[in-house]
Amino acid sequence: MSDFKIGRLVIVGVGLIGGSLARALRRGNTVDQITGVGRNEANLQRAVELGVINDYFTDAARACENADIIVLASPVGAMQPLLLQILPVLKDNTIITDVGSVKGEVVAAAEKTLGKRFNQFVPAHPIAGTEESGVEASFESLFDDRRVIVTPVAQTDGTALQQVVSMWSATGAHVNEMSVQDHDRVLATTSHMPHVLAYALVSYLASRPQTQTHMDFAAGGFYDFTRIASSDAVMWRDICFANKDEISARLKEFSQVLDQAIASIDSDNESDLQAMFENANNVRRQLGDMREHPNKAPSR
Amino acid sequence: MSDFKIGRLVIVGVGLIGGSLARALRRGNTVDQITGVGRNEANLQRAVELGVINDYFTDAARACENADIIVLASPVGAMQPLLLQILPVLKDNTIITDVGSVKGEVVAAAEKTLGKRFNQFVPAHPIAGTEESGVEASFESLFDDRRVIVTPVAQTDGTALQQVVSMWSATGAHVNEMSVQDHDRVLATTSHMPHVLAYALVSYLASRPQTQTHMDFAAGGFYDFTRIASSDAVMWRDICFANKDEISARLKEFSQVLDQAIASIDSDNESDLQAMFENANNVRRQLGDMREHPNKAPSR
Repeated sequence: MSDFKIGRLVIVGVGLIGGSLARALRRGNTVDQITGVGRNEANLQRAVELGVINDYFTDAARACENADIIVLASPVGAMQPLLLQILPVLKDNTIITDVGSVKGEVVAAAEKTLGKRFNQFVPAHPIAGTEESGVEASFESLFDDRRVIVTPVAQTDGTALQQVVSMWSATGAHVNEMSVQDHDRVLATTSHMPHVLAYALVSYLASRPQTQTHMDFAAGGFYDFTRIASSDAVMWRDICFANKDEISARLKEFSQVLDQAIASIDSDNESDLQAMFENANNVRRQLGDMREHPNKAPSR
Repeated sequence: MSDFKIGRLVIVGVGLIGGSLARALRRGNTVDQITGVGRNEANLQRAVELGVINDYFTDAARACENADIIVLASPVGAMQPLLLQILPVLKDNTIITDVGSVKGEVVAAAEKTLGKRFNQFVPAHPIAGTEESGVEASFESLFDDRRVIVTPVAQTDGTALQQVVSMWSATGAHVNEMSVQDHDRVLATTSHMPHVLAYALVSYLASRPQTQTHMDFAAGGFYDFTRIASSDAVMWRDICFANKDEISARLKEFSQVLDQAIASIDSDNESDLQAMFENANNVRRQLGDMREHPNKAPSR
């Protein structure tokens, strides 16, 4: 255990990620006081009742006075207005970080908005989550053995970066550094594109005649396959537009792979289709070997 | 409990489904003797050691002499040669059934091959499975509260149908009747197409530069989304060609839905994309409410 400790932490957006971060830091006794910020006062009140946060404000600026670390855990689209709101109360040693699934647009917004305080902003992204939302869905082990990616830029202050790395390490996560561009490219393939596919698949199923019959006989594969289609629609809409170039390019490339599969089926090309399936088998099994089944919330 | 009991059951293909059927029937004390058939003698030997079957043959015809019920649990592509092999030893009261994921081609093969014994064939499909294969992966609770679809045709003998329904009911499953055409249409959407999408997605990921980096940072969503891409490649190749018209048509329609999503992203149409995501949210949540998380093998 290190002697890392946060005095006053402010979490803007006390949902699944923000709430789980608070719980994980409390578990490690890594924080003295946590203040929540949000628009939904009932959710914030519930977070206090659950012991996730100590107190809350609906006004982000008031909440962030005297903060040591401010974590922005709101949808990507809300970042810029939030940064504008809190800018006046930031001090020289206040650290600002985020949990956004897209880094390019968030970093650009921070650079534009924070001006000379941009060096105090540490872009970060915990690769963890469930399809559920809200503080009720949060749990302290969400980040255990999961990855957190930090994407510092040239201006990022080294001490601020180290504090954010220490914070995430204290949650049980492993922290890796990556460039903003690499992050957005890799996550477009491994996370953003699969979400669009899952949404599109469920949307397609809903457009079929006999939707209810289809749902009655949906196999476990379909259930797992579409789990992520329960994820928050607004959050994922924001992600799609914040990383639109990468996601659009990846979807178009995937579409071509899909067209190949369709062509193999239509032309009775059994060997090509089997080769694709076996290739996928091999890669997926490596992935399975790399880790136990992740990201399952404990029974609640 | 009913007093339904099978004297001599022959299971051709003692893998995940065949092995789990045997275990489930033993659990309910619903069968006196189970004979296994397969080409992999080591797997059959292991099935005997595990107590899943009593004995085995590698010759299907010899195994099926004096069978009361014969369950064909082999890949769909192997059905016709198997039916040819066992035809000479069938008696008037022998019941033949299958577990194939496609019913049209299997029924056509049975009609063509079995001739006047076609009425003794009961097409069936248990909607259950994991991505694993082989008798080691089988477990007795696989069919608990799962659905089994039977697709009798005009010629199907009523008593034979009732016996197969009783057998599956004894495993803990709920049995529903559906036409061959409806089965293949519904399953193309809920099972076959998602498998092709998962295989194509993992295949696409494997084609990207920095595959290992992608895998290192694959989120839980990707893991769940691609679970079914571990499924047996040959089995799924067979399914794709056995139900090719339906699967190809569904994939092309899905491709259009995907194109709409790409167009929404490219044209900054936030409201259309959000509407698609919210529609998917709603449908997927109904599905989630309908059942607990299914199809998970117990810890082994």
